[in-house]
Amino acid sequence: MRPVKQMDIKPGMKVKELVEEMSKSGVFGAGRIAKAAEILKEMKQDKDCKKFLGLAGAMVPGGMKNIIIDMLKNGYIDALVTTGANLTHDMVEALGFEHYQGTSQIDDKELHKKGIDRIYETFMPNKVYEELEKFFNQNFNELKNETNIKEFLWKIGSIIKKESILKTCYEKKIPIFCPGIADSGIGLMMWGHLAKGEEVKLKAFEDLKEIMDIAWTAKKTGVIYVGGGVPKNYIQQAMQLTKGASYGIQITMDRPEPGGSSGAELREGISWGKLSEKGKCVDVICDATIALPMIYAAVK
Amino acid sequence: MRPVKQMDIKPGMKVKELVEEMSKSGVFGAGRIAKAAEILKEMKQDKDCKKFLGLAGAMVPGGMKNIIIDMLKNGYIDALVTTGANLTHDMVEALGFEHYQGTSQIDDKELHKKGIDRIYETFMPNKVYEELEKFFNQNFNELKNETNIKEFLWKIGSIIKKESILKTCYEKKIPIFCPGIADSGIGLMMWGHLAKGEEVKLKAFEDLKEIMDIAWTAKKTGVIYVGGGVPKNYIQQAMQLTKGASYGIQITMDRPEPGGSSGAELREGISWGKLSEKGKCVDVICDATIALPMIYAAVK
Amino acid sequence: MRPVKQMDIKPGMKVKELVEEMSKSGVFGAGRIAKAAEILKEMKQDKDCKKFLGLAGAMVPGGMKNIIIDMLKNGYIDALVTTGANLTHDMVEALGFEHYQGTSQIDDKELHKKGIDRIYETFMPNKVYEELEKFFNQNFNELKNETNIKEFLWKIGSIIKKESILKTCYEKKIPIFCPGIADSGIGLMMWGHLAKGEEVKLKAFEDLKEIMDIAWTAKKTGVIYVGGGVPKNYIQQAMQLTKGASYGIQITMDRPEPGGSSGAELREGISWGKLSEKGKCVDVICDATIALPMIYAAVK
Amino acid sequence: MRPVKQMDIKPGMKVKELVEEMSKSGVFGAGRIAKAAEILKEMKQDKDCKKFLGLAGAMVPGGMKNIIIDMLKNGYIDALVTTGANLTHDMVEALGFEHYQGTSQIDDKELHKKGIDRIYETFMPNKVYEELEKFFNQNFNELKNETNIKEFLWKIGSIIKKESILKTCYEKKIPIFCPGIADSGIGLMMWGHLAKGEEVKLKAFEDLKEIMDIAWTAKKTGVIYVGGGVPKNYIQQAMQLTKGASYGIQITMDRPEPGGSSGAELREGISWGKLSEKGKCVDVICDATIALPMIYAAVK
Repeated sequence: MRPVKQMDIKPGMKVKELVEEMSKSGVFGAGRIAKAAEILKEMKQDKDCKKFLGLAGAMVPGGMKNIIIDMLKNGYIDALVTTGANLTHDMVEALGFEHYQGTSQIDDKELHKKGIDRIYETFMPNKVYEELEKFFNQNFNELKNETNIKEFLWKIGSIIKKESILKTCYEKKIPIFCPGIADSGIGLMMWGHLAKGEEVKLKAFEDLKEIMDIAWTAKKTGVIYVGGGVPKNYIQQAMQLTKGASYGIQITMDRPEPGGSSGAELREGISWGKLSEKGKCVDVICDATIALPMIYAAVK
Repeated sequence: MRPVKQMDIKPGMKVKELVEEMSKSGVFGAGRIAKAAEILKEMKQDKDCKKFLGLAGAMVPGGMKNIIIDMLKNGYIDALVTTGANLTHDMVEALGFEHYQGTSQIDDKELHKKGIDRIYETFMPNKVYEELEKFFNQNFNELKNETNIKEFLWKIGSIIKKESILKTCYEKKIPIFCPGIADSGIGLMMWGHLAKGEEVKLKAFEDLKEIMDIAWTAKKTGVIYVGGGVPKNYIQQAMQLTKGASYGIQITMDRPEPGGSSGAELREGISWGKLSEKGKCVDVICDATIALPMIYAAVK
Repeated sequence: MRPVKQMDIKPGMKVKELVEEMSKSGVFGAGRIAKAAEILKEMKQDKDCKKFLGLAGAMVPGGMKNIIIDMLKNGYIDALVTTGANLTHDMVEALGFEHYQGTSQIDDKELHKKGIDRIYETFMPNKVYEELEKFFNQNFNELKNETNIKEFLWKIGSIIKKESILKTCYEKKIPIFCPGIADSGIGLMMWGHLAKGEEVKLKAFEDLKEIMDIAWTAKKTGVIYVGGGVPKNYIQQAMQLTKGASYGIQITMDRPEPGGSSGAELREGISWGKLSEKGKCVDVICDATIALPMIYAAVK
Repeated sequence: MRPVKQMDIKPGMKVKELVEEMSKSGVFGAGRIAKAAEILKEMKQDKDCKKFLGLAGAMVPGGMKNIIIDMLKNGYIDALVTTGANLTHDMVEALGFEHYQGTSQIDDKELHKKGIDRIYETFMPNKVYEELEKFFNQNFNELKNETNIKEFLWKIGSIIKKESILKTCYEKKIPIFCPGIADSGIGLMMWGHLAKGEEVKLKAFEDLKEIMDIAWTAKKTGVIYVGGGVPKNYIQQAMQLTKGASYGIQITMDRPEPGGSSGAELREGISWGKLSEKGKCVDVICDATIALPMIYAAVK
């Protein structure tokens, strides 16, 4: 048994050094942060490993966009699965808007009058939807014939000018999956065209071929889940085609006891064959905006 | 100000009476259960109100299936949005299988060897997938040409023999939406056919027309969220086409602070116009398998 | 393996019947509520079992006072351990005040101006402290010489006129322990006298003799924890003198991962000898104001 | 309104720099970590401010001991309130034992057989109690006459040889309060003597004079709560004698909705006068073993 070494803090300490201290203490949240950093590092260096990131939660309003972009650019992610909401917020910033530091201690009626949409303690001007609409009007002809969600998203990424998750995935040719795309501002804009009787060819199951193929042909796989929801579950499903993921990192504040997939411990996946019996995994019970930057800064 | 009346428990008490006591105490979890029952009752009686249920989490393994079916049959739900997982588990039981009372205090490697999939503290034999495969093989020709997820699901509901959520929605002509359907056992089965080069016509955005239309044409709307994820968010999105929901009930164990949609308080929707400024709403912070039966038993 | 039986809700259903349905489903929160009811019933009927209730959280403002009193009167509790806060709120109501149904969506500055103290979504007029002060002034001579916290609290219970937890414990001669009594309105009032140079004889460790003796001499023991904190831990400590509790029920919303005692699963106590290896126990992850009334109504 | 600046991670980044990025994003968990660091820094530099640390949770087994000691030595804390458990674990290490990195995925019966006590995912050999007993036997005569818990603890701190929280408080003459001391291994050891008929003079309310005096005479006050329970509440109570704390930092994983003091937002204290209307405060919803080292490393 290894002792819990009491952590020491030094002035001017680097994140890497702090996480090393956490590794030596080795328990509770700190120990898990350290283990996540260790797994992320090992996963990155494993040339045989295809790495999937499942990204849920309001991560663009929450300030995580550049970290995701950086991870995409630096070989930490071979396939991204995310929510339509994150991609919409990514587009919103790419179209020149910003999210704002707000508060939840506020009368939402006042915000409504001012045309401000609240995402917990961030604010977004509702007028972003006008620009989104303009974008989808201008590019509708290019988008309407795509049958595959990944191609549809890469197309958007190819049109967008500003640095963004979408543009980076397009440029780096990193597959980006979004099975729940209808449930988002992007879906809403496309619906605007459907409602006018226009046709949109995007198909619901088409992308399964590609994500399943990546999983099936990979020598080894690794999974990173930031939040749960569809992104996590969609990757978990693909893992059933593998010998089980060799690496797993999950960052969530959801609890396991209510029984849902989002809060499920990674080890549960062993029973399904989604995680390898010998897989290294860790559940980090922490706000992702704290844990992800910390883990990434310790490894980068 | 109304005083907190201390709750009294009587032998042989009815659920309705217990919830009345909770209403008199009026605070914390108990007060919210009572408020949810009150809103559910009022929403049900409001003839002008279109009622949307967003259902996430492992609710079929968790024993909630019959309650959902009963709510569908008795006019509590005009449109259902759920996850592919819930519908897969619904099919699993309709095909003659059961879920089992298990435990999370177990070695998942042992379960894996025995072919048992764990969903927190429930177990499911992995062989259900063989029957699912058989079902989708037998009915592929009928399903492959559907372009609309709701029609696709109704078709499944029309084929299924045993009582189930799918069959009930089909028979009662209650629209059932599942934007993330690719992320589920159903998706997996359809992928099996795609992988063989067969074509499946299901489209990603098509259903938006119908859910938006229901929202747009409704005089009033009410929302019930059991868990968060895509089901909640997809309904919230539709609410933007209304004057805001008049009634809102949310049952979740997720917290608001990490910023994601699943844990967001309903009142946040006021800023977006998703909830009416005068809407009655309540956030019940409780395991859904406790809160939903209790609230429903108090109202039925 | 027992199947998860889907729960059925019937009109006019009794709480007992609802909890039976929960027992048949057997999993997640519902299954745990049912198991807690079963354990509570068995513990009550076990004549050899000394039953300890650890009560933390704002349970009097939360409307649970009469349930606790009822449990005390009906043989569910042989020893009560609670916080000074709960006893202070119990006294506040015994002195003729009430707690009020408030809200957390409020400007606390406004409340401060109005002399209203907020306890989450309950309100209490700050002037209760004047009456508390009067009580402790009038009865100081009777209280100052007590050396034992239990006797001190029984004395208060003997003076109080209105039904209350304190009065019930006194009348039923149920030991009531409060090791953290200095941390409460009661402590504050006694400090008022200390500050004037008066002497108060209450000793810190004295009560250990009695609680340890109850544990040591009991043939069997059972523990009920509503919330964690000192009340839970103080009983757990006494359990070390037994062969381990035979029954255990814990109701909490705290999670285990941060490592604290309040969120610790009961089974952890087995390693310490606080819970018997053969003990029946359940962790109910639920707001106590929902779970406790439900469990008690199912058993009463 | 300030925009949410997306966080950038640089190789070899210092913790201070990471927290600055968090400050620029400004929202969710990251924003709160940054705000906590800012408040801690300001509180430290404010010469008029008396700083109270309330420390609950298994912080010594969790690897936080040296951080607390360092904060005590470097002027971050003028008064410490903690649990008996933390002080017992502090003594355990001072007596030459260690805590071990364990796991919660284990059969507690096996641990029990091996004499290992589990504290979530840490292990402690049960034989530590023999050394504790020896310590209290050897020093009983020196301890039995103390009437004041702070003096009692300082006395222990004066006897202990190894660096520890207790020794540091003694040497730095930092008052250390522990109103729930009977609820701990220390209490258990003293009970051993009481049970033999020996007298122990420690009084329950005596320390209130000192903590109240510190609060009352302070020009300004600041509070840091790591976890809730008695330590938080005891300081909150003392704050009622001030004009309200000018600074407040709370690190907890407890939620506010069940209504207990541990999960209560700091701003609630404004209604009571425990927090100044102009006080700067932040609730960090995070595992303390992650948040505390990070915040402290950013400031030190």
